[in-house]
Amino acid sequence: MAASPASLAGRFPSERFNAQNCRRSNASLICGKIPPRRNHAQRSRRLPKISRRSQRADLNEEILGCGHLGIKRFFALDHQAYEPGPLGTKTKELLGLVASAVLRCDDCITYHLVRCGEEGWKRDEVIDALNVALIVGGSITIPHVRRAFARMREIDGLKSS
Amino acid sequence: MAASPASLAGRFPSERFNAQNCRRSNASLICGKIPPRRNHAQRSRRLPKISRRSQRADLNEEILGCGHLGIKRFFALDHQAYEPGPLGTKTKELLGLVASAVLRCDDCITYHLVRCGEEGWKRDEVIDALNVALIVGGSITIPHVRRAFARMREIDGLKSS
Amino acid sequence: MAASPASLAGRFPSERFNAQNCRRSNASLICGKIPPRRNHAQRSRRLPKISRRSQRADLNEEILGCGHLGIKRFFALDHQAYEPGPLGTKTKELLGLVASAVLRCDDCITYHLVRCGEEGWKRDEVIDALNVALIVGGSITIPHVRRAFARMREIDGLKSS
Amino acid sequence: MAASPASLAGRFPSERFNAQNCRRSNASLICGKIPPRRNHAQRSRRLPKISRRSQRADLNEEILGCGHLGIKRFFALDHQAYEPGPLGTKTKELLGLVASAVLRCDDCITYHLVRCGEEGWKRDEVIDALNVALIVGGSITIPHVRRAFARMREIDGLKSS
Amino acid sequence: MAASPASLAGRFPSERFNAQNCRRSNASLICGKIPPRRNHAQRSRRLPKISRRSQRADLNEEILGCGHLGIKRFFALDHQAYEPGPLGTKTKELLGLVASAVLRCDDCITYHLVRCGEEGWKRDEVIDALNVALIVGGSITIPHVRRAFARMREIDGLKSS
Amino acid sequence: MAASPASLAGRFPSERFNAQNCRRSNASLICGKIPPRRNHAQRSRRLPKISRRSQRADLNEEILGCGHLGIKRFFALDHQAYEPGPLGTKTKELLGLVASAVLRCDDCITYHLVRCGEEGWKRDEVIDALNVALIVGGSITIPHVRRAFARMREIDGLKSS
Repeated sequence: MAASPASLAGRFPSERFNAQNCRRSNASLICGKIPPRRNHAQRSRRLPKISRRSQRADLNEEILGCGHLGIKRFFALDHQAYEPGPLGTKTKELLGLVASAVLRCDDCITYHLVRCGEEGWKRDEVIDALNVALIVGGSITIPHVRRAFARMREIDGLKSS
Repeated sequence: MAASPASLAGRFPSERFNAQNCRRSNASLICGKIPPRRNHAQRSRRLPKISRRSQRADLNEEILGCGHLGIKRFFALDHQAYEPGPLGTKTKELLGLVASAVLRCDDCITYHLVRCGEEGWKRDEVIDALNVALIVGGSITIPHVRRAFARMREIDGLKSS
Repeated sequence: MAASPASLAGRFPSERFNAQNCRRSNASLICGKIPPRRNHAQRSRRLPKISRRSQRADLNEEILGCGHLGIKRFFALDHQAYEPGPLGTKTKELLGLVASAVLRCDDCITYHLVRCGEEGWKRDEVIDALNVALIVGGSITIPHVRRAFARMREIDGLKSS
Repeated sequence: MAASPASLAGRFPSERFNAQNCRRSNASLICGKIPPRRNHAQRSRRLPKISRRSQRADLNEEILGCGHLGIKRFFALDHQAYEPGPLGTKTKELLGLVASAVLRCDDCITYHLVRCGEEGWKRDEVIDALNVALIVGGSITIPHVRRAFARMREIDGLKSS
Repeated sequence: MAASPASLAGRFPSERFNAQNCRRSNASLICGKIPPRRNHAQRSRRLPKISRRSQRADLNEEILGCGHLGIKRFFALDHQAYEPGPLGTKTKELLGLVASAVLRCDDCITYHLVRCGEEGWKRDEVIDALNVALIVGGSITIPHVRRAFARMREIDGLKSS
Repeated sequence: MAASPASLAGRFPSERFNAQNCRRSNASLICGKIPPRRNHAQRSRRLPKISRRSQRADLNEEILGCGHLGIKRFFALDHQAYEPGPLGTKTKELLGLVASAVLRCDDCITYHLVRCGEEGWKRDEVIDALNVALIVGGSITIPHVRRAFARMREIDGLKSS
C-alpha cells in the first residue's frame, strides 16, 4: 500500500514539500528518504509487505519533527541526491545500492532495491551490480548479498521468474 | 529495574570490584561495560525495559569469567576510559555516543544513550550530537539514528516531551 | 542435522562439485561457503541447532543458481581460500574468524566459529584469537564478541566445560 | 597566516557567506569546511605551517565552484553542524575529533585538532578524548593517534609544555 | 604512455590473456586490475602522468607472478566484474567509483576515475556520482572527494573546461 | 638499528618493563607496540631500512610519556595480546596481519609483516594469509596488499628468493 499522505504530511517545511508530492513510494517508509515522484504506472504497482514498515515511518516522522534543522536539511539533501541531474535517477539508485552493499547496511540495501525496482532495473542488472559490490567488498558482504536476494523475492520486477 | 547485585557479583576479581560498586547502572547490562558509580538521585531513576537485557548480562558474566586476563583487562580499561579525568564523565559519554554512531553499532549506541541520560544530557543536546554523527558518517548512519530515536523513547530524560 | 545432498545438489556446475563432496559441513548452511571435505569422525559430530539455517541454505542455492558466473566463481574462490596450501585449513579458519570479528560480521563469525570447532581448535585458543580481534578492533567489537560467546554454547568442542 | 578573503570570496552564494565571515580559520584550508566566526583574540593566534595547505584550499574552491548544488549544500551543512546549537561549538568540535579518529581519517583529525585548539580545549583534554577514540576503535587507530600527536606539536594551545 | 606489452606479458596464463589484449589501459598500472579492451579512438588518448605508476605496475607483476593461484584468480575475477554483462562496462565503472569513494580508498578512486574517463563519462556526471558517495558516506569522505578532484585535473575528459 | 635502551627507558612503569626487555624489535618503532622478547638468533638479523622510523619511535615515546594512564595501559595490553598464551606468538602475529589487512591500515600491516618475519613465517605462508584477507576484504584491499608486497622486499625471511 502506498504511504498515506496523512502519515507523511508535516514532515517537511511547507516551502519544500507538500502532502501530495510525498505520496510517492513505499521505499520512503524504510530508510528515511523521500524518493522522487513516480508516474501513475509506477504507483499502481503493489509492493509486497516489508516487515516493521509502519514503525519505521513513525520514527522518520519523529526525527523530522524533532526540531533539529540540520537533520531535516540532511534528510532533504539525501533525497535530492537521487533526483535527476547530470545523471538520471535510475542510474543514481543503482549507485546507492552498490554503496549500501559495500558499506554493509541491510536497511539501506532494502531501500535502494525497492527504488531500483521502481526505476525499472531488471533482476539480472541488479544482480550484476551486486556482483560489483561483492568483488569490491569481499566475502564479508556475502550475508548482505544473501539478504538482498531474500528482499528481491518481495519486490515486483526483481523477483525470480 | 536496576541490575541486582547478585547477577553482577563475581564478574570481577575482588581486588578491583565488589558487588556494591557494581550495583550501578542498567547500561552495564547492555554493552559489557561497567559504568561509573552513580549518586543516589541517579540510582533512583527507573529505566524502561530494554529487550534481551538479562541474556546480555549473562554473557558478560561468562566472558569476564572465562579466564582470559587480556579480555578482562580490556573490559576494565574500556570502563575506565569514561571515568572522570581531564574531561568529565558526562562529556566522555557523549563522545562515546558519537563514536558508536559513526561506527554504526546499535548496541553501543544504546549503551551510551542510556549513560548520556543518566549523566544528565538533555534530549535536544543528544540529538545535536547525533546530527554531528549523521553529517560525519552520512546517510548510511540513518537507520542507526532512527533506532537511536526509538531507544530514546525508553530512556528517562531523553523522551520526547 | 547435516545438509542433505538433495538440498545442495545442483548448486555448482558438474565439473567442479558433485552432490557427494557438497555433503560436508553445517557451516556451509550459514554463510554461503562450501567448506572443505571432512573425514568420517568429523561428519559424525552433531551440530547444535543454528537458527534460520534452512532459510540461509535456500538463499545460497538461489544465489548460486541465479546464473551470474562472477558470483558463482567468487563463492568458489572464497571456498578455496581456506583449503590446504602453504598454510593449513585449521590456521586459515582462525584467520577467517579474526578477520570476521574485526569487520564485525556476526554471520561470518558464526560460520568461522563452527569451522574452527570442526578443525579442532579448543575453546581457550578461540578465545585467545577473539582477544586479538578485541584489541585490534576496540570496544566497538564487544557486542560481536558477546554474540560469539553465545554461539560457542551451541558448538561442540567450543562449549564451556 | 589567515586565509586571505580573496582566495575564499565567491565560494558560497552571497546570501550565505561573504568574504569577511570566511576570513576565519586556518582549519578551513585543511578539510573543506568553513569554521565558525572567531573573535579577535582567536584570530590573532598564529597557526604553525600545515603542509600542502594552499593546495587544499585551492581544491576546496574548485569543488565549491564546480556547479553542483548538492555538494555545495552538503559543505554548508557540514559547516553548520558545528555552529552553536543545543551543544556549543567547543563541545561539537571535540565530538568531530573523536568521530574522525575512530573512522581513521588523518585529514579530518588534523582539521578538528586545529579547531579544538582554537576553541580552547587544553592538551590533556584532547588527549583524554583521543583515549576514548583509542578504546572504542582499538589498536588499528594507533597510527592515527600517533599522527595526531605529531600534529599537536604544530598547534598553539595543544603543544606539550 | 600505454603499458608496454613486455611489462605485462606473462602475468596471466596464456589461455586467458596475451600481450596484445593487455596493451589496453593506463588504469591497469594503478590498481592491479586489467581493464577491458579499448578501441583505437580510446587508445589514442594520452593520459596525463600519474605519480609512482611504474612502481605499481612492477608490484602488480610481482603479485601475479608470486605463484599463489587464489590471488591470481581474484585479480582476474575483479577484472571480469567490469566487463560487459547485463550492465555495460561504462555503468559498472561508475559503480566501482562510488564503491571506492564510500570505502575511502584513494588508489581505487583514481583507478576508476581513469576508467570512467576512458568509458566516456563526462565531468559533470562523475561529479554527480561523487555527490551520491558524499551523501552516503558523509563528511569523512571529503578529503577523498578533494583528491578525486585533483586527479580529474590529470584525466582527459574529466578536466574542468 | 635496534631501538636503543635509552630511547625506550622510562616508557613504562618499572614493575612491567625494563630497558633490557625493550631492546627487542625494530617492529616496535613502527606501530607503537612493544614486541615480545627475541632470542639471540632473531636479534642478530638486520632489518632493512623502513622510512620515517625514528620519527615514529619519537612519537611513541611522546605518547607513552604524555601522562595519560589509559593510553599507556592500552599500549601495554596491545603488546600483551601477542604474547604466548593458549595460542603462540607466531600464530597471533599472523592473526594481527590479517586483521590489519582487512581493516586496511598500512602501518599496522608493516608492523605485523616485520613481526611475522621475526617469528619465522615463510614468504609463501604470509602470502597465503594475505590471500585470506584479500578474499574476505575484497578488491578494496588490493592497494594494501600491493604495499605489503613492497614491504616484504625489505624484510629478511619474506623476500622473494
